[in-house]
Amino acid sequence: MRLRKKPWIEAAIKEFSQVINPADMQMYQGNWRKLCGFSPEAPLYLEIGIGRGRFISEMAKVHPAVLFIGLEAVVDVLYNAAQKVEENDLTNVRLMAADAVGLTEFFAPGEVDRIYLNFSDPWPKTRHAKRRLTHSLFLGRYRQILAESGVICLKTDNENLFEFSLNQFAVANMQLANITLDLHNSGAADNIMTEYEMKFSARGMRIYRCEARFR
Amino acid sequence: MRLRKKPWIEAAIKEFSQVINPADMQMYQGNWRKLCGFSPEAPLYLEIGIGRGRFISEMAKVHPAVLFIGLEAVVDVLYNAAQKVEENDLTNVRLMAADAVGLTEFFAPGEVDRIYLNFSDPWPKTRHAKRRLTHSLFLGRYRQILAESGVICLKTDNENLFEFSLNQFAVANMQLANITLDLHNSGAADNIMTEYEMKFSARGMRIYRCEARFR
Repeated sequence: MRLRKKPWIEAAIKEFSQVINPADMQMYQGNWRKLCGFSPEAPLYLEIGIGRGRFISEMAKVHPAVLFIGLEAVVDVLYNAAQKVEENDLTNVRLMAADAVGLTEFFAPGEVDRIYLNFSDPWPKTRHAKRRLTHSLFLGRYRQILAESGVICLKTDNENLFEFSLNQFAVANMQLANITLDLHNSGAADNIMTEYEMKFSARGMRIYRCEARFR
Repeated sequence: MRLRKKPWIEAAIKEFSQVINPADMQMYQGNWRKLCGFSPEAPLYLEIGIGRGRFISEMAKVHPAVLFIGLEAVVDVLYNAAQKVEENDLTNVRLMAADAVGLTEFFAPGEVDRIYLNFSDPWPKTRHAKRRLTHSLFLGRYRQILAESGVICLKTDNENLFEFSLNQFAVANMQLANITLDLHNSGAADNIMTEYEMKFSARGMRIYRCEARFR
């Protein structure tokens, strides 16, 4: 989503206690649970590209024992998510203005139990394929930070991105599960929708979903 | 496909030299290549549900060194396929009036290099799921007759069957490859179409395809 840059955001975002400064990453890497007041056994779920934060907020409400970390590269969008997290008093959420390229500097090996990729940018041009969040380059990063039984949950309305992702998962020898080609007509009662998903599924857009884990 | 039963077919089908009598299966099992005049190294490709035989005939023309076996449960339909094979003088095709339930009696372990499932009956009702040709019950049979590097090639226009199949493959711990959600718009130049596929893709129906192999 491309938004007009609001100049005061950079300063305002720092006011939120749940927003982590990327400059503090060295401190957090390997210590997320401890520094966020969670037990070493608590699950840690990461959403990459949280948008306005509906998904991570609703998930955090339903799963209070899980520590949720949300990354969003667009600061103006992250600001909206931060407001939502604060309004809902969600103490199990942390947000960060960052993209997925630096993941292995944010998390220690095996520190993450689950990665959510919701409606990621499809980067339709072939020359931009490496920017897709399910490109093997990113899968390599996820493999490093995911725990042994860790899982990637992908949801998208973009057929080409879904097809690309299935093939990248397969080439990476990942175990697939719960593949659905039409989420909203498959009776997935516990699906929590993103803002984008609410808008587009209301127009009858098809939503694809699957899970993948490394062997 | 449900056709009016033609009473003379049962007798007429026996006239075709390329049509194998299921009663001879004990002789053929484990000896297909030898009895069909092929070398022990020749690839053996099996199509289950050949319909009117366009796919298997065209494939046999393109791959003369491959021995193609086609099963079709509906004898009236098989008759059409047998005519096509004879007209085209395809010496590398054998046909049989049979369904897939008896597969392990037709082929020895590891005898088959490739299985084609083209536009199989989707059996949409849940209580009929076991009849779907990608149900784990059938996958178990395929596993027995497939060679170690053997592959299942699935092509369908039925979204639910495709989704079901992907999940069955995944649960069976199979390696997926070349997944496409829209075959005719994905530039698959070497795709050979079935009769059904020609008809429905001309109407803009989406065709799904993927390959799966056991580990």
